[in-house]
Amino acid sequence: MNHNRARLIALDWGTSFCRAYLLGAGGGVLSQRRQPSGIMTQPSHAASSSTSYDVAFDQTFEELCGEWLGNTPGLPVIACGMIGSNHGWAEAEYRSVPADLVTSEIVLTRVHTRSGTTVHIIPGLIVESAVPDVMRGEETQILGALTEHLIAGTLDYSTDHIVLLPGTHSKWVRITGTTVTDFTTCMTGEFYALLTTDSTLSRLATHAKDPDWVAFDRGLGVAASPTGRGGILNTAFSARTLVMTGKLAPHQVEDYVSGLLIGHELAGMLALWFSGESGEVLLCGDAQLNERYRRALQTLGVPVAVAAADCAPAGMWQIAGASGLVSGPDKDDVVIADAIDRTTEVEFEVRR
Amino acid sequence: MNHNRARLIALDWGTSFCRAYLLGAGGGVLSQRRQPSGIMTQPSHAASSSTSYDVAFDQTFEELCGEWLGNTPGLPVIACGMIGSNHGWAEAEYRSVPADLVTSEIVLTRVHTRSGTTVHIIPGLIVESAVPDVMRGEETQILGALTEHLIAGTLDYSTDHIVLLPGTHSKWVRITGTTVTDFTTCMTGEFYALLTTDSTLSRLATHAKDPDWVAFDRGLGVAASPTGRGGILNTAFSARTLVMTGKLAPHQVEDYVSGLLIGHELAGMLALWFSGESGEVLLCGDAQLNERYRRALQTLGVPVAVAAADCAPAGMWQIAGASGLVSGPDKDDVVIADAIDRTTEVEFEVRR
Repeated sequence: MNHNRARLIALDWGTSFCRAYLLGAGGGVLSQRRQPSGIMTQPSHAASSSTSYDVAFDQTFEELCGEWLGNTPGLPVIACGMIGSNHGWAEAEYRSVPADLVTSEIVLTRVHTRSGTTVHIIPGLIVESAVPDVMRGEETQILGALTEHLIAGTLDYSTDHIVLLPGTHSKWVRITGTTVTDFTTCMTGEFYALLTTDSTLSRLATHAKDPDWVAFDRGLGVAASPTGRGGILNTAFSARTLVMTGKLAPHQVEDYVSGLLIGHELAGMLALWFSGESGEVLLCGDAQLNERYRRALQTLGVPVAVAAADCAPAGMWQIAGASGLVSGPDKDDVVIADAIDRTTEVEFEVRR
Repeated sequence: MNHNRARLIALDWGTSFCRAYLLGAGGGVLSQRRQPSGIMTQPSHAASSSTSYDVAFDQTFEELCGEWLGNTPGLPVIACGMIGSNHGWAEAEYRSVPADLVTSEIVLTRVHTRSGTTVHIIPGLIVESAVPDVMRGEETQILGALTEHLIAGTLDYSTDHIVLLPGTHSKWVRITGTTVTDFTTCMTGEFYALLTTDSTLSRLATHAKDPDWVAFDRGLGVAASPTGRGGILNTAFSARTLVMTGKLAPHQVEDYVSGLLIGHELAGMLALWFSGESGEVLLCGDAQLNERYRRALQTLGVPVAVAAADCAPAGMWQIAGASGLVSGPDKDDVVIADAIDRTTEVEFEVRR
């Protein structure tokens, strides 16, 4: 098997970025590129009409993938993320939970580029309850994270797990095998941005370059203490009063607020989802956020495993295989090949 | 006793407004005026130096009170609120709780105007704990609210009470007689402004002129239900998914978020402060906020009383008496006289 032959183009296309991966046999990343051309950050030449958005999406696609397609005409293309939303290139469906993440029944939404290529967009997931929830893109990252952990033998395929994808909108996901049974969103990252950008608290804060773990742990401690029972609406004001009384330095405010918020997110989710002893949580975010959440989960006594970074391409490879976009790969053919060309600063963890 | 003779000028001077009251015997409001010249909203001619701020404060004072002082030279002047903060005219102290709201031991901070008048600023309160809390102005409103309720006989002076002052920063206050024993702040109003102005949720919302109580009650219900255990960081996202799934109209988003936030504030404070059966809460805010909180407290089974609007002047009258700024008034001389001149749109409730 020639691992270096291109087999699939996989696009992780979200709100802020489009990340393009050229995958070889076994889903190995041969090359990767990215642009800050997410569906909410299209360059200004994309006006408000859907036609001009389509032109912008097409242009981003050609810039990132044109050369790859020139070298290997007819390469299949798969995509996940907000590109499949009603503000994206083409609206993909939401599959209701419980939903198996890797099955031949997944319907990919097709959109045709000007150059004649078909892009296959992976559907999102929806919880259809009185308080609904949705995701687009995270389902594919989870599948990739599970794949890596299954290869490494660090996860028991048969038992229930909780996967946590921290971010602007953190996703908490219950999963059995490769079937998502439930999930819910915490807007923790967005609350952090709001509180540290344009609130009473932000006016007292100065920005620090490195994380202040003392301040973070202090916020975490307040959220997890009996004082924290009042919730974030109540504890947030302490970021102000601690500075006013000289007990917190202005450069510590942001990490204190980060600790408060993550502490309250975890306390809330423990109350909502965990009864008695908690199972292991698989963390699947960027390195910085993973470190904050790992620290917080461990402080609260919750066992943690951390997934490899950048899981989306491994997930897309699995789905491309299950839906027949690429031939060959099945559960015995999960190999992450050497990356032979790295065109961006994005790190990718290599496993055999 | 001539109720119409001016006895005291009382200034409720906060972040956004300066409200000036001319008080007669018994604390009756003879006249009132206001300007949008709070300590954070001084006109642009007030530059950043403290000297120019002082000039601006002086000018606001002369515009609101100059005529009254011309008619009755030597009238004493008292003030409460953020005008006594480190960004105000002169920094007044914070008194530590437990603190009696009306005692001769209260030290008023003096500031002298250009025209030779002395303004006496009432100190704020502070809770000096691991998670400190502060207030400026609310202590005076509470005293006024208690006074009115004591007159009306709707409050037992001897037992413990909780006073709730809803607002940008809601204050929850424990009080025995006229002694504040503890208090804590919820940033609920500020979170509402952040979420409905510049968040993912605000982009889905259209503004409605009148309160949508169905949407408000729905948010309240989610916060108070088992689903609400995840906290506001978790439930907030439902404002988005309910719109996406056609279950909430864009014009309902703001009131749904209001219900969520107030519901979580109450749930948090019930967990923090109430054990078993809850005592009566005395609500002391503007009419619109009072209505939201009254509705929410009653939904959660907490008994509520509502204070008369605009309690600050009654509180300032009490403190002026206790500290000897005006002679005569004691606990038997608490009479709210007819308002004989109303120069602004601010409503004032008249009691005899």
